Amino acid sequence: MSTHRRIVLAARPQGEAGLEHFRLESTETPAVPEGHVRVQVHFLSLDPYMRMRMNDAKSYAAPVGIGEVMVGGTVGVVAESRHEGFAPGDTVVCMGGWQEQAVLDARLPGMVRKVDAGRVPLSAYLGAVGMPGVTAWVGLNMIIEPKTGETVVVSAASGAVGGVVGQLAKARGCRVVGIAGGAEKCAYVVDELGFDACIDHRAHRDAASLGAALDAAAPKGIDGNFENVGGMILDVILSRMNAFGRVALCGLISGYEGQPLAITNARLLLTQRLKLQGFIVSEHMALWPAALKELGAGVAEGRIKYRETVAQGLEAAPEAFLGLLKGRNFGKQVVRLV
Amino acid sequence: MSTHRRIVLAARPQGEAGLEHFRLESTETPAVPEGHVRVQVHFLSLDPYMRMRMNDAKSYAAPVGIGEVMVGGTVGVVAESRHEGFAPGDTVVCMGGWQEQAVLDARLPGMVRKVDAGRVPLSAYLGAVGMPGVTAWVGLNMIIEPKTGETVVVSAASGAVGGVVGQLAKARGCRVVGIAGGAEKCAYVVDELGFDACIDHRAHRDAASLGAALDAAAPKGIDGNFENVGGMILDVILSRMNAFGRVALCGLISGYEGQPLAITNARLLLTQRLKLQGFIVSEHMALWPAALKELGAGVAEGRIKYRETVAQGLEAAPEAFLGLLKGRNFGKQVVRLV
Repeated sequence: MSTHRRIVLAARPQGEAGLEHFRLESTETPAVPEGHVRVQVHFLSLDPYMRMRMNDAKSYAAPVGIGEVMVGGTVGVVAESRHEGFAPGDTVVCMGGWQEQAVLDARLPGMVRKVDAGRVPLSAYLGAVGMPGVTAWVGLNMIIEPKTGETVVVSAASGAVGGVVGQLAKARGCRVVGIAGGAEKCAYVVDELGFDACIDHRAHRDAASLGAALDAAAPKGIDGNFENVGGMILDVILSRMNAFGRVALCGLISGYEGQPLAITNARLLLTQRLKLQGFIVSEHMALWPAALKELGAGVAEGRIKYRETVAQGLEAAPEAFLGLLKGRNFGKQVVRLV
Repeated sequence: MSTHRRIVLAARPQGEAGLEHFRLESTETPAVPEGHVRVQVHFLSLDPYMRMRMNDAKSYAAPVGIGEVMVGGTVGVVAESRHEGFAPGDTVVCMGGWQEQAVLDARLPGMVRKVDAGRVPLSAYLGAVGMPGVTAWVGLNMIIEPKTGETVVVSAASGAVGGVVGQLAKARGCRVVGIAGGAEKCAYVVDELGFDACIDHRAHRDAASLGAALDAAAPKGIDGNFENVGGMILDVILSRMNAFGRVALCGLISGYEGQPLAITNARLLLTQRLKLQGFIVSEHMALWPAALKELGAGVAEGRIKYRETVAQGLEAAPEAFLGLLKGRNFGKQVVRLV
């Protein structure tokens, strides 16, 4: 009998999540049934959506049960296969969860997908060439539909999603303004990712100050907003939107710990004829092949850049995740397990 | 020299509008220049959007200037024509404003449009077969795109727009729930217009009570919302929307006098992947012919019903308009000038 380590949801947070809501435990690694594979996980992805899965609230996905392994995207190497499409040594991306070994039904469409670790680094399949990158692509192309010369504002601009949004929008001929937390992140967004401007929201704590910074960075107003944060940042962006502006509502990280999340001036939605649309990337599978093709080529050829924060060891995952919710990561947050 | 009466904006309201913001005056009727017509106005339309034109705020249309005639749709009869397309006696619909005589440039596309007063009553071209009816048609078909078996909720359901929305949605096989103010309006919405249910918001002053009424009237949740009111009503509707629900944001009459207009739980837009879109019917002129064709046939054949509240005489317009903002009208509010 072999065992592996995993992290389960120990309790549901009331308000802010803490280390006490996770539990590291050892578990027996299950035998591999027919049609399944066992994957040795190399990298675990940490993403803001996981915070919502910790709550027992109406949402687009079922909550993680108490005592169940935390959900999560992973990349790794097939260690054992009872599916003819996979052989030991294959590099794959899969929803392995917060654990060192994952046994998965490879017959389910999309559950385990082979990837080429020679073309781009394996961990990139959790970021720019994975779910976050496709999220950026889908929100931008399906909802914002940017036109050359328009201005697009992206919150959480240095993150795994935001960074790709801005680079894709630049490639489409837009003026791109990021919003990020801290001078270092803003410098990266402009200097490395090529955004036209980036506003440090920590230097603009009230709506008037943030609004003035946006006026300077987006002098022609805002046509598209890829929104990851919500709250005051979204309110100020809405107040600067041009007629027929589009908001792709991807995340609302400012409210994931239960903070109020109001749009204070809904009148603007009418007077400026705005479209605001929430979306979940996993519900638009038809768009993934085109997105992954563009993202994979962009990363392989160096046109799409990204940065990672790598935590070491499964036991580091909870603290890294809590840091992500506070914006302490820089770029894509992953955990290296081997 | 002949004169006619008109109502001008006397002052901008700070908060609630009152009679003191309007002034009835006599003015010299201008001579009719080349390409123009003079219309004897028979009916003036009163519509909620006019309240926003009284403010000097960023919106989709320029505000009415102080001392300028109030804007408004009208129907009437050509009294004098210097345009070859029009002859005295023609019945027309035009943006004549709050006045008894209007001199208009008939060369501008859509400015003066001949209508057949034999097919439907002339005043219907201000309601179900006019701007309000087309507003209903465009919001329903362009944004909500209802499917058979879905549930559509319409606020201000007994009004000129809401009544048509519900009847069109019923014809498309939807369950239709209205929200209106008062038992009499609700009875009309169900018994005359054929909605499946109607909730009296005056009997449900808080969100919990209104929510329970909606749960009973829309047991499968809400897929489409044609929103004319905003505020608490919109909040409660959003909290009952199904995944991929669509909100056509047509009006926010609950906030036209400066009341706060927040969407208190923006999280729902994301978790339910909702689309919320503001629109202005005059910006979708390409859709008007198809809409007017369906609406005209529906009214002529008795399939689309409507009700009017008729104020008598131009001098009655301000009070009728203020009543409209309070929901004192029943159905389409017009003013008969002759």
